[in-house]
Amino acid sequence: MKNQKNIGEFELIGRLSSFLPINDKDVIVGFGDDTACVNVNGKLLLLTGDIQVENVHFIKSKINPEDLGWKLISSNVSDVVACGGIPRWGLISIALPKNPDYQYVEDVYKGIKEALDFYKMFIVGGNTSASSEMIFDLFLVGETKRFVSRSSAKENQLVYISNHLGLSRAGLELLLMGKEVYEDWELELIKEHTKPTARIDLQETIEKHASSCIDISDGLAGDLGHISKMSKVKIVIEKEKLKIHPNLRKFCEKYDKNPYHYILYGGEDYQLAFTVEKELKEIGDISEIGFTEKGEGVYLKDGKEFFHLKEKGYEHL
Amino acid sequence: MKNQKNIGEFELIGRLSSFLPINDKDVIVGFGDDTACVNVNGKLLLLTGDIQVENVHFIKSKINPEDLGWKLISSNVSDVVACGGIPRWGLISIALPKNPDYQYVEDVYKGIKEALDFYKMFIVGGNTSASSEMIFDLFLVGETKRFVSRSSAKENQLVYISNHLGLSRAGLELLLMGKEVYEDWELELIKEHTKPTARIDLQETIEKHASSCIDISDGLAGDLGHISKMSKVKIVIEKEKLKIHPNLRKFCEKYDKNPYHYILYGGEDYQLAFTVEKELKEIGDISEIGFTEKGEGVYLKDGKEFFHLKEKGYEHL
Repeated sequence: MKNQKNIGEFELIGRLSSFLPINDKDVIVGFGDDTACVNVNGKLLLLTGDIQVENVHFIKSKINPEDLGWKLISSNVSDVVACGGIPRWGLISIALPKNPDYQYVEDVYKGIKEALDFYKMFIVGGNTSASSEMIFDLFLVGETKRFVSRSSAKENQLVYISNHLGLSRAGLELLLMGKEVYEDWELELIKEHTKPTARIDLQETIEKHASSCIDISDGLAGDLGHISKMSKVKIVIEKEKLKIHPNLRKFCEKYDKNPYHYILYGGEDYQLAFTVEKELKEIGDISEIGFTEKGEGVYLKDGKEFFHLKEKGYEHL
Repeated sequence: MKNQKNIGEFELIGRLSSFLPINDKDVIVGFGDDTACVNVNGKLLLLTGDIQVENVHFIKSKINPEDLGWKLISSNVSDVVACGGIPRWGLISIALPKNPDYQYVEDVYKGIKEALDFYKMFIVGGNTSASSEMIFDLFLVGETKRFVSRSSAKENQLVYISNHLGLSRAGLELLLMGKEVYEDWELELIKEHTKPTARIDLQETIEKHASSCIDISDGLAGDLGHISKMSKVKIVIEKEKLKIHPNLRKFCEKYDKNPYHYILYGGEDYQLAFTVEKELKEIGDISEIGFTEKGEGVYLKDGKEFFHLKEKGYEHL
């Protein structure tokens, strides 16, 4: 359930979902989180969906169809993992123009197949339809032992992220440069954008330890903003704890950019940001970057100074 | 999971689903039926989806937005009921052009709300996106005690349908005439097309008694053709048992049409066709129209003559 800012998703969903009140004791979570959650005979199922529309989310000539298929699955799996779950079953709606490019569609399905194998899940159904542009809409059912919400961070907890941030954005900018030759580390950044991987390997960590979690699709500042707002806590990011990936550092040196712009506002990394009650023993590539406290908003602590971070914007960096 | 014949859904789905083998003991039914079916802690969940694309499935200026919302829910509920289930939870993907007609979208949601209340189900999530045309894609989770398939009819069983058939098609034709004034019975036929109701009231009958079932979206001959093919039985429809609704009779007399064309090939009635082991006591508006036997194909028995019915076509009537 990613955000398409251009049509004001939050406002529209808010208005529309107010038409549809939920009055069902089996619905644990409805609108507003990474996934919905329902109780089926004591098992918590996660329900989510995400659509890829040609010329909105992808441009046919610019994306490898296998990568498109991979991304369709990965972006949905990322939502499920952010709620502490594993993916189980998907349905795919596809809509195609007249005389579609069947080879392209088959290649999208090859990417889907690769992702299904990687995430250990299955597509169990779907439907096809006509349209003027290609549309791939995935609905995904996951399951979890414990639903991890955006709204359940508490004060005085620690904030963690997985891996490094900002790489996907740097990769996108490199791709848009349309250079004839790229250096190897540039190609690695581009791949972070074209073939992101949902952090399925962290699912147990999230399910067991996270008090709240979100996947980083909009950018760290914006996504922590969702946790802050929904959990009613202030979040402080400690700048010196933000690690800069060597490739991002090279990119910023070469193109005269500020790496913190990318780390805080990059988006589409499909890494996870989450809060925990107490320090986690070193688990893989996660790292502590800050803390929660009483208050509201997301702040960057730089030495002794605190800067309020807007969801989008580059002040004070 | 309705069929969009114009792009050869069956062939395409067949080709694409062959890329995606299912190897999961919890998946009871995958591709090829009205819904998929999965086992969650002993409960059978039904998963299905259906998309409505502007200028493909609906023309904005020609359909009342409330009716569009109602139909989006009803067509999916119909698939769930055909598998013996009740609808529980839905997710809606909507995609809208720039500067969308918000009033229209809100009115679509009013129709959705009316349908949710009628079918006693809830929308628990969704996402919005941009696109060049309006798209409403519904994903529906239902549940059943027993999955009723298209593939489980046996030889020497009875074939039933609910209510009358052909009314939706007659209503569509009336609508397309664009007359300034319609007679009352004509308006009733038009309503059968614009606001069809899924037979949720027959869900228990199907769950308890049906050996196979399908909802009539393509037309009786075509849909029984699916049961025949997937169950490997011959189906015989007895012409004298096909009831002609008084409004359809009036329509056919006024416009010089053959009512059996409409009953056998009409489509979009959202009535149910199903097979049973033995005669059902009178339950509501269902009626027996034929039987199964060893063999293949769908036949119309007219007196002592038998005519093979193609999925689409008007021969021998």
